[in-house]
Amino acid sequence: MKLYYIPISGNAYKVRILLSLLKVPYEKIAIDNARKEHKQPAFLKLNPRGEVPVLEDDGSVVWDSAACLVYVARKHGGEQWLPAVPADMAQVMQWVALAGNEIQFGLQYARRGVLQGRWTAGTLEQGQAMSRVALAALEGRLKNNEWLALGRPTIADIACFPYVETAPEAQVPLDPYPGVVAWLARCKALPGWAAREV
Amino acid sequence: MKLYYIPISGNAYKVRILLSLLKVPYEKIAIDNARKEHKQPAFLKLNPRGEVPVLEDDGSVVWDSAACLVYVARKHGGEQWLPAVPADMAQVMQWVALAGNEIQFGLQYARRGVLQGRWTAGTLEQGQAMSRVALAALEGRLKNNEWLALGRPTIADIACFPYVETAPEAQVPLDPYPGVVAWLARCKALPGWAAREV
Repeated sequence: MKLYYIPISGNAYKVRILLSLLKVPYEKIAIDNARKEHKQPAFLKLNPRGEVPVLEDDGSVVWDSAACLVYVARKHGGEQWLPAVPADMAQVMQWVALAGNEIQFGLQYARRGVLQGRWTAGTLEQGQAMSRVALAALEGRLKNNEWLALGRPTIADIACFPYVETAPEAQVPLDPYPGVVAWLARCKALPGWAAREV
Repeated sequence: MKLYYIPISGNAYKVRILLSLLKVPYEKIAIDNARKEHKQPAFLKLNPRGEVPVLEDDGSVVWDSAACLVYVARKHGGEQWLPAVPADMAQVMQWVALAGNEIQFGLQYARRGVLQGRWTAGTLEQGQAMSRVALAALEGRLKNNEWLALGRPTIADIACFPYVETAPEAQVPLDPYPGVVAWLARCKALPGWAAREV
């Protein structure tokens, strides 16, 4: 399995976390963010969206972090990380969707803007407002539960983790969300949790 | 099964399409958009995000259109609409993710802004630029394929359909994307495809 990634990308980090938790061997291929290698024709053939992560495995190519998590969880994770029971799968996928929506366009967007100066979908304030919608939804669940979906860690937690942990880099303080802060620590304490590279 | 929806919502429309294709009986509960009923405490208990659609079935509550599609497809659709084979499931989910990301923050966002005057994540031009990223990815696939994932209709097509069809309401012309235009017609010709209410 090959993972195309950018070290600072939280979306690629999600896939590294799951591969590490499941002890799946893989080859990392770093994409040069400074040279915008992911927007060049060679990479666009792999992913028309021009984003990392991308997985190549057994002749198939999977782009999008949520789809990569689904692929790895179903191929290597049994029923633990993404169960097949419809109601359970849906509980996991609703938080994965939050990660691709309010977390992506809130916490990821504001962080990228602060760190890289790119503002393509609104202002810092708008990104921070959407961040607070995401964090309120997470806190509502995590103030009384250890994990986002079901009673155990799933890809819901992995999908939401990276850009919640970096909320301070988006200038969004986490102090109002004690349940979220405790959950971040709980995630990182899972055996095999991957460290960030940047 | 109960579906909480708003007639103009394309995200709720996705779930109506799948329920109709699969002939699943359900009760529709219309949420009053003008009174912002989906932002009131009673509804926020069902969905902390304050959005439609929400499904209630057999004691479980599922929010988010992608999660609702996953739930209905896996409970009632056999292997047709969301297959369990990991590589196939991932192919479907990458387009479902595009629907929740570039299509949502491009085509849905620009349409909502034009129709309702709400601009919470950038300008019309920014929404339209993101719309073109989504449409280029769709066209790249659909110029040589009938369906987005695999060789048959899946929830990938249903997830992407509603806000692509309404691209003109977002002031995004579809003429440069002939593969997408042909695919819209192909979707609507599927037996049981649900009509819009608005």
